[in-house]
Amino acid sequence: MTVITLGVRDVAASRKFYVEGLQWPTFFDVVDEVVFIRIGYGHLMLALYGADDLAAEAGRIGHAADGLAPPISLAHNVDSADQVARVLEQATVAGATLIAPAQQREWGGVSGYFADPDGFRWEVAHNPFWTIGDDGIIRRAAEADSPPE
Amino acid sequence: MTVITLGVRDVAASRKFYVEGLQWPTFFDVVDEVVFIRIGYGHLMLALYGADDLAAEAGRIGHAADGLAPPISLAHNVDSADQVARVLEQATVAGATLIAPAQQREWGGVSGYFADPDGFRWEVAHNPFWTIGDDGIIRRAAEADSPPE
Repeated sequence: MTVITLGVRDVAASRKFYVEGLQWPTFFDVVDEVVFIRIGYGHLMLALYGADDLAAEAGRIGHAADGLAPPISLAHNVDSADQVARVLEQATVAGATLIAPAQQREWGGVSGYFADPDGFRWEVAHNPFWTIGDDGIIRRAAEADSPPE
Repeated sequence: MTVITLGVRDVAASRKFYVEGLQWPTFFDVVDEVVFIRIGYGHLMLALYGADDLAAEAGRIGHAADGLAPPISLAHNVDSADQVARVLEQATVAGATLIAPAQQREWGGVSGYFADPDGFRWEVAHNPFWTIGDDGIIRRAAEADSPPE
């Protein structure tokens, strides 16, 4: 995985949210056409691209006629439960819609959801059974040999 | 970005495609419920999860009533144009639908698309203006100061 492309309704509006709102660093930027944002410890790019442009290249895809958001959730893990609430707050300040506030989850962690301008879901999560090293690699925490994740 | 979750119609069918077909390494696996697959140089997880289960957690999302695939494209970069065709071939052998064969793209590279069992688009790409180091970090190739990507 190197790039995640979101087919958005309005590249300028999405750019405004991610780059101006959330202040994510752009890697490459063609105004109103495509924006590449460096995410994932530099190992991953998020691309914002017009849904019609993407459909022209990748075949019959698009936003659901019935208004449902696409069945995708992109997760961002943080170091503590408190941070989940803080990041959700930052996102809503930046223009996100809060979908689910930070809450204890069955799997043993805390998470909440927000939606970006197109309805794409982001989960902000603290998972006590995962550690993310300085190298960015997700590992099971030492004490997590029994419970899953 | 730490996890990409695909809300799929049938977890077992998707697992069969990714784990048995493409032979991607599982990180954590609850048969017929959820599968975590290590992708992206160990820096990223792909989660396969029932679309209804995902909707129960993340609100009103789902597959489009009109049969459109969701407006998402996940890209995998490879080292050469030849490899693009090889990876597309491997994917179709594993059960993918070929959407677009390897072809020269306007942006100066070669790419093709396949669709997974749910219609999620994957682009297999060779981008001569990008280098991906041993550390997994995407960088502009030295000679790429003029053309984009």
